[in-house]
Amino acid sequence: MNKTTRISTGRLEAFSDGVIAIIITVMVFDLKLQEIPTDNTVWDELLKLVPKLISYAISFLMLAIMWVNHHQLFHQIKRTDNKLLWYNIHLLFWMSLIPFGTHFIGANPWLWQSSLFYGVIFFMNALSFTLIRNYVIENDILLDSINKKAHIKIRNKNRLALFIYFLAAIFSLISVYIAFAMFLMVPAMYFKPDNNN
Amino acid sequence: MNKTTRISTGRLEAFSDGVIAIIITVMVFDLKLQEIPTDNTVWDELLKLVPKLISYAISFLMLAIMWVNHHQLFHQIKRTDNKLLWYNIHLLFWMSLIPFGTHFIGANPWLWQSSLFYGVIFFMNALSFTLIRNYVIENDILLDSINKKAHIKIRNKNRLALFIYFLAAIFSLISVYIAFAMFLMVPAMYFKPDNNN
Amino acid sequence: MNKTTRISTGRLEAFSDGVIAIIITVMVFDLKLQEIPTDNTVWDELLKLVPKLISYAISFLMLAIMWVNHHQLFHQIKRTDNKLLWYNIHLLFWMSLIPFGTHFIGANPWLWQSSLFYGVIFFMNALSFTLIRNYVIENDILLDSINKKAHIKIRNKNRLALFIYFLAAIFSLISVYIAFAMFLMVPAMYFKPDNNN
Amino acid sequence: MNKTTRISTGRLEAFSDGVIAIIITVMVFDLKLQEIPTDNTVWDELLKLVPKLISYAISFLMLAIMWVNHHQLFHQIKRTDNKLLWYNIHLLFWMSLIPFGTHFIGANPWLWQSSLFYGVIFFMNALSFTLIRNYVIENDILLDSINKKAHIKIRNKNRLALFIYFLAAIFSLISVYIAFAMFLMVPAMYFKPDNNN
Repeated sequence: MNKTTRISTGRLEAFSDGVIAIIITVMVFDLKLQEIPTDNTVWDELLKLVPKLISYAISFLMLAIMWVNHHQLFHQIKRTDNKLLWYNIHLLFWMSLIPFGTHFIGANPWLWQSSLFYGVIFFMNALSFTLIRNYVIENDILLDSINKKAHIKIRNKNRLALFIYFLAAIFSLISVYIAFAMFLMVPAMYFKPDNNN
Repeated sequence: MNKTTRISTGRLEAFSDGVIAIIITVMVFDLKLQEIPTDNTVWDELLKLVPKLISYAISFLMLAIMWVNHHQLFHQIKRTDNKLLWYNIHLLFWMSLIPFGTHFIGANPWLWQSSLFYGVIFFMNALSFTLIRNYVIENDILLDSINKKAHIKIRNKNRLALFIYFLAAIFSLISVYIAFAMFLMVPAMYFKPDNNN
Repeated sequence: MNKTTRISTGRLEAFSDGVIAIIITVMVFDLKLQEIPTDNTVWDELLKLVPKLISYAISFLMLAIMWVNHHQLFHQIKRTDNKLLWYNIHLLFWMSLIPFGTHFIGANPWLWQSSLFYGVIFFMNALSFTLIRNYVIENDILLDSINKKAHIKIRNKNRLALFIYFLAAIFSLISVYIAFAMFLMVPAMYFKPDNNN
Repeated sequence: MNKTTRISTGRLEAFSDGVIAIIITVMVFDLKLQEIPTDNTVWDELLKLVPKLISYAISFLMLAIMWVNHHQLFHQIKRTDNKLLWYNIHLLFWMSLIPFGTHFIGANPWLWQSSLFYGVIFFMNALSFTLIRNYVIENDILLDSINKKAHIKIRNKNRLALFIYFLAAIFSLISVYIAFAMFLMVPAMYFKPDNNN
């Protein structure tokens, strides 16, 4: 592939930002209360929204973490090539399925299938991130100034997230409550105090 | 957190702009007139749209004010850090709920609950702005050239908006008319002639 | 208003571009064919889509022209100020109502009210452009290198568009066919050969 | 047309990126599972989603290829002019119809009409690309450093895609299975190993 056909890191990030901004925002349009016939049913209708609101908030948080991680990763990259481009598009594909999983679990919170799908989608997202990280290491396109220790720490966190999502998907067959608790462990892990040092 | 993992102010603003552009625009897709069976019902159908159109216009105006304020705030900031990033994501989360509140109040304008939710959502938005402003002052990351008087004026305006939204939410329990009048006070406050000096 | 609080022309254009990109694209999501029960009804269903497709195509074309005009206008501007910012937000508000008008006329093509609304919305868009153009001339914030003759030509075209939309809105009370023909005159006017010189 | 009224290649690409990001993302919002009344129907409902998911994945892939091609093409262009601008808007129009075709074929996978429309839309997209490529060659606005051999290779690939879409549209009248196989040939062609050299 010759030089002129390359897409710059900046352009790749801008496009990814656009896609993430749309995914994170448009999900909210599933939160709707239609015209309510009588005052008595208002709270019933609002109550039905609670699982949708919770699944929206969790997905919003996860996507925000992914956005931050995406930037941190691409800021450490020297140059993009055609394969990295397609690894990134692969990640965006799985990200784009998050609204589907969010809507499914929001509309059917107690169904083990929705919990399973939600887990599988986030597992595939974490896997896509791992594939990108492995690729940039193997091909030595990380900036030299990157702290190796910080890098290994992030990779381990990535793998742990991958493992948690896998477990959550499995546990959704047994109990959706356990699966939910596990979904919340990943954002919690990213907000541990030592992460900000 | 090491230098290479930082997200630049420019990137943060561009992402926020994207999210705000989507929120402000996609709301209009709730304004729809389906195929109308007979000519006689056209005006009835259009009449039903009036509260939706009004709530859309108010939310559009509020979001535009927030967009302007967001830029003014971030143009005064020397650098971003991880905490500021998450304060901003927190703001975007509450902004993203505005279409929900707008749709709810547009479909059920005379319900005190919709007026209450609308007030609470805007209160949380004003609060998120205040948290960002407090953080940048406490951590001294405002540009030195910023006029202190202008800054205090903006903070006071912020607090007043916070107070008005709080009152509007409370008053919606008594009368939705009073609550509506209060919602309109905030944009009015931002368009007072002395604001343009 | 002090210097640091100003929003740059670039930022203003980027935000406007984002809003226009969303408006122009999301309109297509009203073009949908649900699951069709029997093969016999396919063509009936497709036929019902024709007015929606036509109104979509016209609105797409009009928005594309507006996008081009918006850039041409802002590339001729020396600096932005607070008033220009709000004139632009005013324009974006009327642009954001185009999907509403497009959906209304697409679902009810033979209703004079939908033709009237479509005309009024585009009239308000043309008016918003005229307001911006008048403001930048009065306040002398156009680049000096701008050809005065070219400028007057554009302003006259603007006024003619304004007049055509006004007439189209009026004529929709008499015949929707005449109104439709007039809506098509505006894009035709912008594609006259001498426009590319 | 004088110099100041020109839209830069960067601005054109950014706007196109925005439109493509929206098209590629918002399609996923047709993938929805409403509240499911009884557990017994879950798999039936999920099964109905399969054709929608497949058509979404194919369209996502095609749009990603188009995005990459769009950048490669515009990175080889010296300057934009008014006609190129409108050729690009013409391409964006046909791209914007992809979600319509995707929804139609996803909801009615065994209907030959949906397969025909899907083929026609992608044919028009490939044609729009060909028109742009022909225009830039005829008007000599390609960068001189571009490898002529690479260019001819891309043009031939373009023409082959055009021919495949045309055949797929025709074959959909005979068998939707053959048409589907042909739709998959285009992305396959773009991922042949020699493409990455």
